[in-house]
Amino acid sequence: MTLNELMLDEVKDLYHAEKQLVKALPKMAKAATNDKLRTALSSHLEETRGQVARLEEVFALLDETPKTKPCAGMRGIIEEGSDLLQEDADGAVLDAGIIASAQRAEHYEIGAYGTIIAWAKELGLRDVARLLEQTLREEKAADQKLTALAENRVNAEAASEGQEEMATPKRSRR
Amino acid sequence: MTLNELMLDEVKDLYHAEKQLVKALPKMAKAATNDKLRTALSSHLEETRGQVARLEEVFALLDETPKTKPCAGMRGIIEEGSDLLQEDADGAVLDAGIIASAQRAEHYEIGAYGTIIAWAKELGLRDVARLLEQTLREEKAADQKLTALAENRVNAEAASEGQEEMATPKRSRR
Repeated sequence: MTLNELMLDEVKDLYHAEKQLVKALPKMAKAATNDKLRTALSSHLEETRGQVARLEEVFALLDETPKTKPCAGMRGIIEEGSDLLQEDADGAVLDAGIIASAQRAEHYEIGAYGTIIAWAKELGLRDVARLLEQTLREEKAADQKLTALAENRVNAEAASEGQEEMATPKRSRR
Repeated sequence: MTLNELMLDEVKDLYHAEKQLVKALPKMAKAATNDKLRTALSSHLEETRGQVARLEEVFALLDETPKTKPCAGMRGIIEEGSDLLQEDADGAVLDAGIIASAQRAEHYEIGAYGTIIAWAKELGLRDVARLLEQTLREEKAADQKLTALAENRVNAEAASEGQEEMATPKRSRR
């Protein structure tokens, strides 16, 4: 196996990862209670669709037909995220969990795109590197946006919901 | 569910993630062909054992017994890594793949620890935040070390192995 082949494998893996996210993000957005979080997830869904299209451009540059390779990492991250949506969390606590889940997905992708970009550069595939650098910038920006949302609002609300709950333990929150 | 409970869930999830890594890192180190990579993975194994112990301190601070919660994200990342070890890659290409896999694991953890630290601070759990910040610094340093190894040596070797292979297509590399 050459580095070109290994890179192609990773592109297929990310193609699957992004396609899984296209399916998962609407569910997360629907479950979110904070308007800004819902908007952030919906706009990242649009970005993710663009990232899928960008990977298709990469396949074309490599003279390959777009194909997915099962991405167990992202499958696991999304599985954990949907488990959370089944749990007994609501309000800002649920939002905090959704942000946590989305940020794990972003970090996974940041790691994976970083690797592929380094390999593409080493292999002299500048157009591939340039396309994926656009995606990497978007992933980092999406991650920072979620951090800001968590730190400026959602986490504090989630922590104070817990305090209310402890103060009035018999009141059901659902 | 309160933010405290959600945080405890995530601590259990990371406890499982780190324990899985303690099992996977020796296999990755054994498969690596580059001495510096093998050393980096072995020293990260020691660090990971320390991170497991640090999570046990966190459980103690939270008055909880250490328990794991299946971490599907890390399970998937490790599954992809062991698939790679089965593939027909060797030499620097295999090393490049091992680095890619280890960096996905690091990035996943960087995302997860970042979230828990923010929650712990919001909940006034300063000792918990301080312990996990040490781990987060280690994860970031491990990730940077792997990037340096890849960019200073392994990727260039992997790319040139591919060129040799293309120049002498009939020679088996295994």
